[in-house]
Amino acid sequence: MNNQLREEKVFKDPVHNYVHVQDEIIWALINTSEFQRLRRIRQLGTSYLTFHGAEHSRFSHSLGVYEITRRIISQFERADYADWPKEERLVTLCAALLHDLGHGPFSHSIEQAFQMHHEDWTCKIVLGDTEVGEVLRRLGEDFPDKVAAVIRKDYEHPIVVNLVSSPLDADRMDYLLRDAYFTGVNYGTIDMDRILRMLRPFQGRIVVKESGMHAVEDYLMSRYQMYWQVYFHPVTRSSEIILRQIFRRAKELHESGHQFAFLPDPLPGLFKRDLTVQEYLLLDEALVQTAFMQWKRESDGLLSELCSRFLDRKLYKYVEVESLDLEMIDDIRVAFKDVGLNPDYDLEIDFPTDLPYDVFRPDGEFRDKHILLLDRQEQIREISEVSDIVRSISGLHRGKYHLYYPDNKIAPVIERLPEHIHEIFKQTT
Amino acid sequence: MNNQLREEKVFKDPVHNYVHVQDEIIWALINTSEFQRLRRIRQLGTSYLTFHGAEHSRFSHSLGVYEITRRIISQFERADYADWPKEERLVTLCAALLHDLGHGPFSHSIEQAFQMHHEDWTCKIVLGDTEVGEVLRRLGEDFPDKVAAVIRKDYEHPIVVNLVSSPLDADRMDYLLRDAYFTGVNYGTIDMDRILRMLRPFQGRIVVKESGMHAVEDYLMSRYQMYWQVYFHPVTRSSEIILRQIFRRAKELHESGHQFAFLPDPLPGLFKRDLTVQEYLLLDEALVQTAFMQWKRESDGLLSELCSRFLDRKLYKYVEVESLDLEMIDDIRVAFKDVGLNPDYDLEIDFPTDLPYDVFRPDGEFRDKHILLLDRQEQIREISEVSDIVRSISGLHRGKYHLYYPDNKIAPVIERLPEHIHEIFKQTT
Amino acid sequence: MNNQLREEKVFKDPVHNYVHVQDEIIWALINTSEFQRLRRIRQLGTSYLTFHGAEHSRFSHSLGVYEITRRIISQFERADYADWPKEERLVTLCAALLHDLGHGPFSHSIEQAFQMHHEDWTCKIVLGDTEVGEVLRRLGEDFPDKVAAVIRKDYEHPIVVNLVSSPLDADRMDYLLRDAYFTGVNYGTIDMDRILRMLRPFQGRIVVKESGMHAVEDYLMSRYQMYWQVYFHPVTRSSEIILRQIFRRAKELHESGHQFAFLPDPLPGLFKRDLTVQEYLLLDEALVQTAFMQWKRESDGLLSELCSRFLDRKLYKYVEVESLDLEMIDDIRVAFKDVGLNPDYDLEIDFPTDLPYDVFRPDGEFRDKHILLLDRQEQIREISEVSDIVRSISGLHRGKYHLYYPDNKIAPVIERLPEHIHEIFKQTT
Amino acid sequence: MNNQLREEKVFKDPVHNYVHVQDEIIWALINTSEFQRLRRIRQLGTSYLTFHGAEHSRFSHSLGVYEITRRIISQFERADYADWPKEERLVTLCAALLHDLGHGPFSHSIEQAFQMHHEDWTCKIVLGDTEVGEVLRRLGEDFPDKVAAVIRKDYEHPIVVNLVSSPLDADRMDYLLRDAYFTGVNYGTIDMDRILRMLRPFQGRIVVKESGMHAVEDYLMSRYQMYWQVYFHPVTRSSEIILRQIFRRAKELHESGHQFAFLPDPLPGLFKRDLTVQEYLLLDEALVQTAFMQWKRESDGLLSELCSRFLDRKLYKYVEVESLDLEMIDDIRVAFKDVGLNPDYDLEIDFPTDLPYDVFRPDGEFRDKHILLLDRQEQIREISEVSDIVRSISGLHRGKYHLYYPDNKIAPVIERLPEHIHEIFKQTT
Repeated sequence: MNNQLREEKVFKDPVHNYVHVQDEIIWALINTSEFQRLRRIRQLGTSYLTFHGAEHSRFSHSLGVYEITRRIISQFERADYADWPKEERLVTLCAALLHDLGHGPFSHSIEQAFQMHHEDWTCKIVLGDTEVGEVLRRLGEDFPDKVAAVIRKDYEHPIVVNLVSSPLDADRMDYLLRDAYFTGVNYGTIDMDRILRMLRPFQGRIVVKESGMHAVEDYLMSRYQMYWQVYFHPVTRSSEIILRQIFRRAKELHESGHQFAFLPDPLPGLFKRDLTVQEYLLLDEALVQTAFMQWKRESDGLLSELCSRFLDRKLYKYVEVESLDLEMIDDIRVAFKDVGLNPDYDLEIDFPTDLPYDVFRPDGEFRDKHILLLDRQEQIREISEVSDIVRSISGLHRGKYHLYYPDNKIAPVIERLPEHIHEIFKQTT
Repeated sequence: MNNQLREEKVFKDPVHNYVHVQDEIIWALINTSEFQRLRRIRQLGTSYLTFHGAEHSRFSHSLGVYEITRRIISQFERADYADWPKEERLVTLCAALLHDLGHGPFSHSIEQAFQMHHEDWTCKIVLGDTEVGEVLRRLGEDFPDKVAAVIRKDYEHPIVVNLVSSPLDADRMDYLLRDAYFTGVNYGTIDMDRILRMLRPFQGRIVVKESGMHAVEDYLMSRYQMYWQVYFHPVTRSSEIILRQIFRRAKELHESGHQFAFLPDPLPGLFKRDLTVQEYLLLDEALVQTAFMQWKRESDGLLSELCSRFLDRKLYKYVEVESLDLEMIDDIRVAFKDVGLNPDYDLEIDFPTDLPYDVFRPDGEFRDKHILLLDRQEQIREISEVSDIVRSISGLHRGKYHLYYPDNKIAPVIERLPEHIHEIFKQTT
Repeated sequence: MNNQLREEKVFKDPVHNYVHVQDEIIWALINTSEFQRLRRIRQLGTSYLTFHGAEHSRFSHSLGVYEITRRIISQFERADYADWPKEERLVTLCAALLHDLGHGPFSHSIEQAFQMHHEDWTCKIVLGDTEVGEVLRRLGEDFPDKVAAVIRKDYEHPIVVNLVSSPLDADRMDYLLRDAYFTGVNYGTIDMDRILRMLRPFQGRIVVKESGMHAVEDYLMSRYQMYWQVYFHPVTRSSEIILRQIFRRAKELHESGHQFAFLPDPLPGLFKRDLTVQEYLLLDEALVQTAFMQWKRESDGLLSELCSRFLDRKLYKYVEVESLDLEMIDDIRVAFKDVGLNPDYDLEIDFPTDLPYDVFRPDGEFRDKHILLLDRQEQIREISEVSDIVRSISGLHRGKYHLYYPDNKIAPVIERLPEHIHEIFKQTT
Repeated sequence: MNNQLREEKVFKDPVHNYVHVQDEIIWALINTSEFQRLRRIRQLGTSYLTFHGAEHSRFSHSLGVYEITRRIISQFERADYADWPKEERLVTLCAALLHDLGHGPFSHSIEQAFQMHHEDWTCKIVLGDTEVGEVLRRLGEDFPDKVAAVIRKDYEHPIVVNLVSSPLDADRMDYLLRDAYFTGVNYGTIDMDRILRMLRPFQGRIVVKESGMHAVEDYLMSRYQMYWQVYFHPVTRSSEIILRQIFRRAKELHESGHQFAFLPDPLPGLFKRDLTVQEYLLLDEALVQTAFMQWKRESDGLLSELCSRFLDRKLYKYVEVESLDLEMIDDIRVAFKDVGLNPDYDLEIDFPTDLPYDVFRPDGEFRDKHILLLDRQEQIREISEVSDIVRSISGLHRGKYHLYYPDNKIAPVIERLPEHIHEIFKQTT
């Protein structure tokens, strides 16, 4: 059963000024060990190696998402919109707060390396024998299921899913503002108050009043800029590549029977892709960094070198190429091998793509991908139908192929590479 | 030998907008493994448990101190002040950049627990067989000595020491601004540009033009507020206490021959207070947090409980008392023992003190502690002579005794404590 | 009768982000010609001649005061405090919005020159045959009286007066933030959200929860700094002096029968101190500046010179003197006359005083002057009893005598002044 | 002859923090009556009626443009670029400072009403018998000519013109930042420091290093948003329309021999379009507002009504129509006449257009309209060739026809308008 706190609690937050907690259940969730673990997972993974201010955690971000959601709902309640199901307030707030609970250390890289999905882990933690699960069950045996359903996007009330997860959701608004704040770039400054005022529940989804179109345009442009300036920054990509190579190499070694001097739980389980929820929760960035630090002294030269690269920020260099096909890639790999390089580790190819905002595609993805404007006549239109600027940036691809490589290994042999490959790597960054 | 970089490098910084690097030597120092290690040491220790935004590292702060110093010197050079020794530019910049290099994980607590001093370690790293040492020696065999002398405050040119370490130095200006930015409080916003414009080298020290008095007052008031609002926040103190208890307990166990399931290098050396520079450099907050995570499963109940408290933020509660004497403390300890509590761990006493700015005391500490104003007649006066407001806040003590204790252990036995002690602990926070 | 607006109206505001209008009556008041006239009266009088950004009007400030008051009341209503008389909401909001309605152009100077009080004019406009009066009467014949009573501070519910006018009222909070924003100084940045959260209605007045003490200290220190850095800036004082001299001279000329080439209504009435409300409302800074522009061509040399000085910012210089007595002043005046100067216009003396926060004086001024803290035991204490820092700055006088004079007139004769007077004026600023 | 000031002067500026003045000539220019007059001309004309914070003057803006230009040049000098003609520093700074000198009150409206061009007046003031002219001539008899040539864009060194007037010039950067700051919208926040660092003089023009492309994109998007959110706001357009109608009506009356009760110099000359420089300089917004205030009492009902509308902000309403042709306009005008309305004043049509950034058109406008990127190979490309996003927004037209009309006059007769016209005006805004 939920109670209001006797006195509201606040967290001082640099982005939203204060995060307000009014419900006992929210306060209890924040104080679980699973939620506190998010303090040891950075919001932006390895971006701190490019933008040194970006050291903020998923803990901060999760509080921010909760706070924005709270403000939206409280505005819906004040306006007393008939289309907002009031009884869904708590399940929405809990889902907002917990949506990132299952993130592992350096999420994207570790997920890729070990084929995991943080959303699955979030649901396992919410539903499992955990402190979070225990707290949620205080509101009813089926309450954890409801929260997990919202996170899995198959909750019975689509408007709740829509509020927690849509192109204009609290998650995206918080991360744009927060990542801009902590990196120090000013691309992400959006007029959140204005967007919030323009949101309305309408026929089972969240729509935007037409008069908010400009604010939404501004938000989409900010998002576009943040992707290219921050999230896809090539230096960050370079550090992610090294991270993935470390995980790959360690797994290879483990599978081949290598005896690590340092391999505390739950790392063996991670390598075998066999982790209980309790083991998974031991994974954090402190452990990963400590392992790397100890592995700098492992006997395997490649692993030790990669760990030094990551910890000491000796990243791979990169070159940009306009186009690249499989044949060409093969060519380079062969040439690398010929001069004694290891193309599995000494070459990585990256093609950053993003669709900052997808235009309408009538293929059933309606609720997820669109921002709907509500005009004065209560007609709904997708924003890209109405806004030239949104249509202009929709589906814009920018970005070229990037080849990443260890400069210090290529340099000594570069002259021996075939002319056309030599040509590519001779530019420096 | 120092060279200018072919092209200036910049770091995007949320506080100073950009950090500019123009010298090869500075660039090389930033890229050493010892300097990169500062990314794994938080600037504000455990404050992130009170202010969740305060996750910034000493790496960021060190770049900031360097940048402010660079701006001051470049202004001195532009104004072409005769009293500024131009040839000291690089030694000053290096000392500014490296002044925090020797900080360990959760500095203040670990230093207290193991009687270490970060300044000593900074000098050892600067002078030792390290990457930093190697880079510095490129500028001359005695260059590391010079940098270390500045850090130790016994460099032959006192003005350099004064610039790097004084009540109005780049260190303090950066941390006020940076800590305010990352915690989100607005007490620390100072008009740094104005203060910088008002600084002048004069007869072997840095003085402030009289017309900058108001800006300095504002700076001192900001500092005063930051101390009471952020640095001495009781929740932060509570987490520091637990941290110290963990270190204390682990050391006790180690000394008593306890076999830890998890005790990688350099922890045994730390417990024995016998660390080489190379071992010391393995210490970072990732390792400490990982050890705590593993120790949650140690057989010693006290250690394991304390580690949970720290990682899961189950901190001690506290009560404020107006006055406290040794006898009273003894009383409480005895009473605690009588009801089965362990006063060595279940009770900690804290008296926060601070002198945000000391008035002139004619006892030889002249250069370190004073802010000197230079009037139009080139007369120098200490600011507290001139400013009522500075005199007012100088030496102001605020703060009461705080008693910290584990609420869940006291609660069951509180009724059995003597009346006057019961009285103290019955208030909750 | 008051109605809610069908849809909330908002004003984009640089200080509060948005000003929200929910009541028809407030919307109607803002759209009266008397309220719109405030756009033509600057908030900070002549300060724009010192801080060029300070061009903001009383219109902006009045909206800001209304908005802060609205937020305070809405928080009182949310918390459902028994001590807040809910039925006073509208009278409070109207008084907050209109409290500056009677300000004339360059308020302080014109009030001094013509012995007027803006508060009287505010009440006359509120009660009179004006658009504002007409709108207020829609809420009842006695509604204008109520609003005027709040403004005059003799309303029957002291808590309403206390909310609109106290050392921690919406007026002061808005002007600190707004004046800091527009001048660009950063002394006035206070954590308004925190202060608002700490306010409580309690036994007929507004008190501050004890845990808000630091925020209040910060506010008082900001106020202290703003007084000395902005409000009492000597350059601003210099321009106010010239303004007062212009008014004085024009009045003298008018009284002596001078025929002005330019003297539109209501200037003759102003000179005679005989203005109806309708005439008073014609007074604004556009008129004053236009008169000055035209008077640059008046036959009276003194008036024409003073107008040029004001419009073209050729202000008086000033010197600071530590002490000054009547005899000395007389001395200087005589000396000035002796060398052919006119001491009535060529010399002005200024002693800036301010009490940023008065300590408790048990003389019946209780409600107006004190900031009361409410502790957990619901005991009330005056803040200066509790806070060392407040006690320290309370009653601090700073500031010296300033002598203002036309440099270009003194310079040619300075050598002929008696030695000790010569000495004073020879320093330049 | 130019001298450095003995001590740098600074202006506190909310946008650039400080404006630094180092040259006597700049200081002298700022202190002329012609430059001080800019304090009485608002930067954004009537926008303050939409955004109440937008009360900033052209004086502030001019200082800002000067400051940005100073920073650009000082960076060029530091980098010692061969392509920057160092001897042009002062002429560039003077042109930057003075470029808006000739603006009249409510510039755009008055220029339209009386067919004047502020640039012509700027040149007349610079070249004429004015304080500014006198100061400039101190640097040589031909110095005013040089400054005027830069302003007219036909100066012999095109790079100087390019710096002062181009799509990425100091003027545009200052107004974006300043207008965003004072209105309070956050669309205009650009990373000016980064753009400045990316500028380079190259072969007679200012180009941008390729690595600055994203910052330039962000700038162009900000500009795009500011146009649609602020500069073309329909409420602002409505107030401009009334302003133009007032000027039109007053001129008609004057030409028809109407005797105004209030018509001080230089208004008669303005109506006759026969003004000397000295008369022109008497025109400011104080005079215009004072005239309107007095004209509220003129016998001509239309003029008096329009003046009330402007001063009391009783603006015209508007409706949006998707398309409109001359025939339709004629239709409406006839219908208006039929029901007794005056289509010359009761109907105004507005089609906001803007090209936030024109793509390359090989028609000789090269230098003015393009932003050139310089790549590592020192090849130059126009930004719209390289940036998808710039190409996307280039030439985007948005905006519909707006019909403005006096609501109170249309309402009583609306039922009598033909059905299809009735249809248009029945929506309200």
